[in-house]
Amino acid sequence: MSLLNAALFADPELDDLLDDNAHLAAIVHFEAMLASASATEGLIPSAAAHEISERLGQVQLDTAALGAGLAKDGVVVPALIGALRQTLSEASRPYLHHGATSQDAIDTAWMLQLAQIVPLLQQRLGHVDSTLDGLTVQFGGQKLMAHTRMQAALPFTLADKLSTWQRAIEECTTGLTFAAERALAVQLGGPVGNRASFEGKGDAIATRLAALLGLRAAPAWHGNRVALCRLAAELAGISGVLGKLGVDITLMTQSELGQAVISGGGGSSAMAHKNNPVEAELLVTLARQSAGSLGTLFQALVHENERSGAAWTLEWLTLPTVVRNAGSGLLMAQRLLQRLSFPPQDTA
Amino acid sequence: MSLLNAALFADPELDDLLDDNAHLAAIVHFEAMLASASATEGLIPSAAAHEISERLGQVQLDTAALGAGLAKDGVVVPALIGALRQTLSEASRPYLHHGATSQDAIDTAWMLQLAQIVPLLQQRLGHVDSTLDGLTVQFGGQKLMAHTRMQAALPFTLADKLSTWQRAIEECTTGLTFAAERALAVQLGGPVGNRASFEGKGDAIATRLAALLGLRAAPAWHGNRVALCRLAAELAGISGVLGKLGVDITLMTQSELGQAVISGGGGSSAMAHKNNPVEAELLVTLARQSAGSLGTLFQALVHENERSGAAWTLEWLTLPTVVRNAGSGLLMAQRLLQRLSFPPQDTA
Amino acid sequence: MSLLNAALFADPELDDLLDDNAHLAAIVHFEAMLASASATEGLIPSAAAHEISERLGQVQLDTAALGAGLAKDGVVVPALIGALRQTLSEASRPYLHHGATSQDAIDTAWMLQLAQIVPLLQQRLGHVDSTLDGLTVQFGGQKLMAHTRMQAALPFTLADKLSTWQRAIEECTTGLTFAAERALAVQLGGPVGNRASFEGKGDAIATRLAALLGLRAAPAWHGNRVALCRLAAELAGISGVLGKLGVDITLMTQSELGQAVISGGGGSSAMAHKNNPVEAELLVTLARQSAGSLGTLFQALVHENERSGAAWTLEWLTLPTVVRNAGSGLLMAQRLLQRLSFPPQDTA
Amino acid sequence: MSLLNAALFADPELDDLLDDNAHLAAIVHFEAMLASASATEGLIPSAAAHEISERLGQVQLDTAALGAGLAKDGVVVPALIGALRQTLSEASRPYLHHGATSQDAIDTAWMLQLAQIVPLLQQRLGHVDSTLDGLTVQFGGQKLMAHTRMQAALPFTLADKLSTWQRAIEECTTGLTFAAERALAVQLGGPVGNRASFEGKGDAIATRLAALLGLRAAPAWHGNRVALCRLAAELAGISGVLGKLGVDITLMTQSELGQAVISGGGGSSAMAHKNNPVEAELLVTLARQSAGSLGTLFQALVHENERSGAAWTLEWLTLPTVVRNAGSGLLMAQRLLQRLSFPPQDTA
Repeated sequence: MSLLNAALFADPELDDLLDDNAHLAAIVHFEAMLASASATEGLIPSAAAHEISERLGQVQLDTAALGAGLAKDGVVVPALIGALRQTLSEASRPYLHHGATSQDAIDTAWMLQLAQIVPLLQQRLGHVDSTLDGLTVQFGGQKLMAHTRMQAALPFTLADKLSTWQRAIEECTTGLTFAAERALAVQLGGPVGNRASFEGKGDAIATRLAALLGLRAAPAWHGNRVALCRLAAELAGISGVLGKLGVDITLMTQSELGQAVISGGGGSSAMAHKNNPVEAELLVTLARQSAGSLGTLFQALVHENERSGAAWTLEWLTLPTVVRNAGSGLLMAQRLLQRLSFPPQDTA
Repeated sequence: MSLLNAALFADPELDDLLDDNAHLAAIVHFEAMLASASATEGLIPSAAAHEISERLGQVQLDTAALGAGLAKDGVVVPALIGALRQTLSEASRPYLHHGATSQDAIDTAWMLQLAQIVPLLQQRLGHVDSTLDGLTVQFGGQKLMAHTRMQAALPFTLADKLSTWQRAIEECTTGLTFAAERALAVQLGGPVGNRASFEGKGDAIATRLAALLGLRAAPAWHGNRVALCRLAAELAGISGVLGKLGVDITLMTQSELGQAVISGGGGSSAMAHKNNPVEAELLVTLARQSAGSLGTLFQALVHENERSGAAWTLEWLTLPTVVRNAGSGLLMAQRLLQRLSFPPQDTA
Repeated sequence: MSLLNAALFADPELDDLLDDNAHLAAIVHFEAMLASASATEGLIPSAAAHEISERLGQVQLDTAALGAGLAKDGVVVPALIGALRQTLSEASRPYLHHGATSQDAIDTAWMLQLAQIVPLLQQRLGHVDSTLDGLTVQFGGQKLMAHTRMQAALPFTLADKLSTWQRAIEECTTGLTFAAERALAVQLGGPVGNRASFEGKGDAIATRLAALLGLRAAPAWHGNRVALCRLAAELAGISGVLGKLGVDITLMTQSELGQAVISGGGGSSAMAHKNNPVEAELLVTLARQSAGSLGTLFQALVHENERSGAAWTLEWLTLPTVVRNAGSGLLMAQRLLQRLSFPPQDTA
Repeated sequence: MSLLNAALFADPELDDLLDDNAHLAAIVHFEAMLASASATEGLIPSAAAHEISERLGQVQLDTAALGAGLAKDGVVVPALIGALRQTLSEASRPYLHHGATSQDAIDTAWMLQLAQIVPLLQQRLGHVDSTLDGLTVQFGGQKLMAHTRMQAALPFTLADKLSTWQRAIEECTTGLTFAAERALAVQLGGPVGNRASFEGKGDAIATRLAALLGLRAAPAWHGNRVALCRLAAELAGISGVLGKLGVDITLMTQSELGQAVISGGGGSSAMAHKNNPVEAELLVTLARQSAGSLGTLFQALVHENERSGAAWTLEWLTLPTVVRNAGSGLLMAQRLLQRLSFPPQDTA
């Protein structure tokens, strides 16, 4: 995303959980905890696990060098493991990433990141919900003309209008909880996903690793991406619900309707009188982009064989957009709702 | 869909639950049960409800006339209610569809249809799961070369391969149960969704109606479509999982690999020696179409105001495809798996 | 599409050019002309070509039997050729479909159908263009408030508004001409696309066949689908342009704005006063569905090897929707524009 | 895009034409040339135009401050014009951006950027075409097994295989030329698109401005986005064609087929023997992402009223992806083809 667009959809808190640094740190954390779990189960020496854990806690990564490795191998892990091994004694080197494959590291890293992102989104859903509560207390009793098929229908109340938004937000909360529970699982399969490289201790190590990482223990899901896609669908659902809220506000704030007013809207380079519902429009934009990205992500379910470079990389290019749009959209909706007021209406 | 394409993806059992007749019958059933619930709650006379229920049970609909009404009004309900009222005594006519709006009838009808379709899909998921069990018993111990990033990786077993497919099918089953539970709710809101037209008895009638129809009681969801989209995501997830199974089989059955054989594959008009993995390819096709349709359906979350003709109709054009692809894909996968065998491999 | 939806988007003229009968007739025509071209070039006996041409002109096809063949082979051609050969003398049978493959027949058939559909669409674009001319003559001088970012901006005239629609329609006309010129090419490659099966006469036969069929002569394009996708993009562009026109009309006809009036709009089952802009909304629906279908169709560009059953079938499932939406949308726009009037405005 | 993903799809030459700096510079250039054209036509004083041109040639922009303005107004132009005016004498300030609106500046800027990008892409298409020529000279005579529907079909030659790729590349070149010719037009409409703010000199100024900028003169296209979408479709077509090339190469380089070899493929973190066809897979990834983004971009054709903040911003979020994927994909394809060789085959 361009820096300018980043300003338009700013969400520094989420960016910190989503960016390359967070991703690399999560991979490193995976490798350290894998060593620890493997030592506990007797697969690798405790001394090696101890050293790995200690050195990886202090490592400084050279992102440019990692980028070059990524460009060559299609995945950052070979270069990253190479760099991490440089920080270890020769004796310990083979025990880093022992039995694991790139996909174990990267998928688990994404799940670790999402495990921090989901509660942030839940919190923001809660904030929007509370703000809608507040608006209902303040304005709920006011009459308002309802519209169906783009025509004035019958009067109802602002409480009716707000409750549609609110129930949708609450449905998102319910769904996100379920989807996150299913998706946030450790990935550990080894080269071909059957844990054979862990010499019979794979299931025990995976269970232990999951506990260390705060993720669900589950069989390897290298080629089984449906829980991940479901989580993305919940996130695109959030953006869609916010898009409905956004389009409603653009319609209510039309000059000729005046059902709602946004304080401090966007200015125009040519028309000084304009008070544009910028954030409401952008919620529609995000909804449409996420809908499209979700459709693309579901294309990646056709994940050939034991690991598809094509389909897996397609996830990397689409999932972050869906995550970020849900997050920055919730911030934007919150700001928008806090600046919204509803002038009393004659008509209804 | 063309008749020829219908043959390619034949699923008569599902078609019977999904077609216009099923839809119209579900609308009629909604209207009858609404009258019954409304009478029990004292909103309309019992005699009217009794007559409505009796006459609607025997009604013959003129689909061509309904189509003309649909083309004019954008929704079939006005013409349908007009036709149904012709079958009633004048005294009872006002009590048909009393307090309700078109969207109540159509959305509830879709949920009634889906309430029959979901168990059928669950059953088919179970069949595929059992078939995979059987293949695992028969072939699971055989060695097989695993492939990652389109290259031979390391040998594993057919049980490893089959279990990836099976776990994905089981994840679909889990998710479908949750999504159906949330989505399969009665729709009852009246013209602008707030149940005001039911004179204070709306909530009670909705609860009673839900029970009569075997649906979940819930507030009106005219403009809140996220649970519906979630259900569609689960269905597209099924197609995606089957697309993965399909692409794997096309790769395994390659002439040069011979990891799998389909008995009785498709013939060619030009090459008599061909044994084309037609159904495996079509599973990929369905996965890609459903992924795209899901993305389009999520565009309909941006549902303006109290009812959007544009967004709502977009659901009608996309949801049936996603439903049907899940259903016919499961049939196709079942047929394919039953004709699949795995020649012993040297390489591994 | 369901019969009801077919009523909503009725376009019998286009359906006749797009349906199974048209498709099968086009395949049969391809086979007859191929025989003729092959005889002229000396690849097959003239007598055989003569018999083929004569018998194929009278053939009655059993669609159900063809559907069964399609379900087995993934393509209708093997069953169809089998049925056609039954109508021939034994001597002539081998010369039917001689050198050709299923994809030659089906792709050329689609191009023959599109070669009739494109002029129909051009004609309809012309009608819409003329209707906009007429509206400009009648209403163009009236003042109207322009809106940007969903806010009243500055007054302009109806001529300004209408010209935006009109220029977009004209751009579609220009683009469709170019795209059709590139796409409407004969398909003739034989089993693996290199015309080897035509024994050195492939290029000459293809050129002659193209002339007989009124298509462009071109090398085989079995795996090169970009011209086809471009044509679909033009058609989705038409739907998008009509969707812009539709959304504008839904906004102008809002009860509170009254910038436009549609005579005889859609009725409501619950609110007798409603005059819903049904066709304007449906133009938005079609635009969104075609946009999504176009995205799915472009997925089919990833067409593996010399013929992909998966990608090719995906075209069959998406292209007809894009074609039909352009056609029925143009009809709908025309009807809508003819019923549109613009009350004089105070505000501007 | 993350820095790591940027490494995976590195294209510094294109980034320089596509990034924020290029965009802001193009806006500034538009404003300078607009002043010049307006002075020539007598709308603004020559002295003002002279000062504007001089000062704008030396301006240093504060991107952070512009981002804040963008976040507020939804568009960067108000803040940018404000900043530029600070560099001017008070007398000249009103003549900067005189008569224009934000969309004039931004759309024209995009066209200026694309006017540099299109020739770069044409050049790269030419390189790929030449490389395919070279491969045909070197390997074209070799026999190769063709595959249809994922099964060995009949032998043909490498020349046959390569020519399918090459014809598709050439079709892209033809289409891109046409689409660019139509799309690369100056945008000049003023606040509501009718050039009224240019006091009768709008058409003359637009024509002169177009000549100064090397763009096509055309009526304002604020709400008429179909030529832009067509250009995007050509770019997504390039990615699709490269995706076909990519999937073919992943299939040919399968360990069991060995029809092609990539020197220096990607390494694995777990399997030292792997030589992964990373770039071939990534071409598939880019094709699928661009197909999805194209579908989303076409949603933006439903551009309400005289300017839609929602639809217009959706273009900004999707078009750059489609542009960049075409560009970096062409680089990637070129690198891949240069490292490709074709071992002689027994089978054919």
